[in-house]
Amino acid sequence: MPQIDDAPIEVVAFGWVPPFARGHVRDLRVRWALEEIGLPYRTRLISARERPPAYFREQPFGQVPAFHEGDVHIFESGAIVLHIAEKDERLLPHDTAGRAETITWLISALNSVEPYVMNIVTIDTFCAEQDWAKLRREDAVALMERRLEQLADALGDKPWLTGRFSVADIIMIDVLRNLDPEALTVPTALTAYVARGMARPAFKAALAAQLADFIPDEGDTTP
Amino acid sequence: MPQIDDAPIEVVAFGWVPPFARGHVRDLRVRWALEEIGLPYRTRLISARERPPAYFREQPFGQVPAFHEGDVHIFESGAIVLHIAEKDERLLPHDTAGRAETITWLISALNSVEPYVMNIVTIDTFCAEQDWAKLRREDAVALMERRLEQLADALGDKPWLTGRFSVADIIMIDVLRNLDPEALTVPTALTAYVARGMARPAFKAALAAQLADFIPDEGDTTP
Repeated sequence: MPQIDDAPIEVVAFGWVPPFARGHVRDLRVRWALEEIGLPYRTRLISARERPPAYFREQPFGQVPAFHEGDVHIFESGAIVLHIAEKDERLLPHDTAGRAETITWLISALNSVEPYVMNIVTIDTFCAEQDWAKLRREDAVALMERRLEQLADALGDKPWLTGRFSVADIIMIDVLRNLDPEALTVPTALTAYVARGMARPAFKAALAAQLADFIPDEGDTTP
Repeated sequence: MPQIDDAPIEVVAFGWVPPFARGHVRDLRVRWALEEIGLPYRTRLISARERPPAYFREQPFGQVPAFHEGDVHIFESGAIVLHIAEKDERLLPHDTAGRAETITWLISALNSVEPYVMNIVTIDTFCAEQDWAKLRREDAVALMERRLEQLADALGDKPWLTGRFSVADIIMIDVLRNLDPEALTVPTALTAYVARGMARPAFKAALAAQLADFIPDEGDTTP
């Protein structure tokens, strides 16, 4: 397995998050990319409840993941997976056109899809009981559903965004899996696409590794 | 000037947008990057009011910019400027650590700052009269202001995000300039940073070029 104690790559992740967030923290994307190419890494776990003040010098917003490899220091999951993908053509083609197409979809996932998804998650999960969220939900869902239709059109009958699996699919699938198909209309082509990604051994290994790194939640064992 | 008719690089932009959006369409980022390194381009203008159905095959969400250079086809302003930056060390260092740091900030602007800014723009501009926006504004502003403080801390007393000007500043400054310092608290270090970027000749040339490409608005000339 890629997770070994003396690996040159260090990934900073949380050692605890609330149960609903487990399996959904963004270091998953980094672990997934590393698992796809079998590159070993070690984790350094910090507390999400009491983020060490010094950590803000590593990650200005106090979030995870952060990534260290020799003199390379990266935060932002999108930038980390792109750095990893540069190492292996299985994640990012070497030819200029294929590379540009892949990076286009990577950034599209981060800038044109994820903000809409986060709006839905904010409305349906974090602020579900708030009046503004109830008033906003119908329009936010309509915007999201329109975008999902456009994304499904672009995917067409291809298995992956650019035809072959790439780092762009890692980000897009991890973004889309935060949507609940019971709560809004997700095109079947996209639910199948997400399921295809989550069926990959590297995704399963990354998910298991993230879950294994959490300390048990006190709330899990009290009545 | 970089805008010439037979340039190998084609940038797709809008030929018309409402007056309030002029100077704020995202092809500005691409023009700015090209101006910084003196790389010529031509524009192809499409209508924002009646987006040609065929255009959605170029840009799945019907937005601009799109970019074509031989067999390289890119949408997403972040991906386009990164492709341009690969051509010239003035925008993206060649060494691995400097490159990783620059791409980190590029993606941070797109994924960790712009979504918050767009929430404020949605609340204060597009939906200002809606009840949900009035109810949500205080918390959205607080989230944005906290993030701006963290960003100002990371910038410190450096003139640019990584110390030297780069493609990351093009995106971050174009994101931040959508905030109105009259409407929320923007740290003075960030207003100075934005002003520094907008004072660059390449920014001014890019802005002038975007504005010059718009056809006159009918609304401008009728009473």
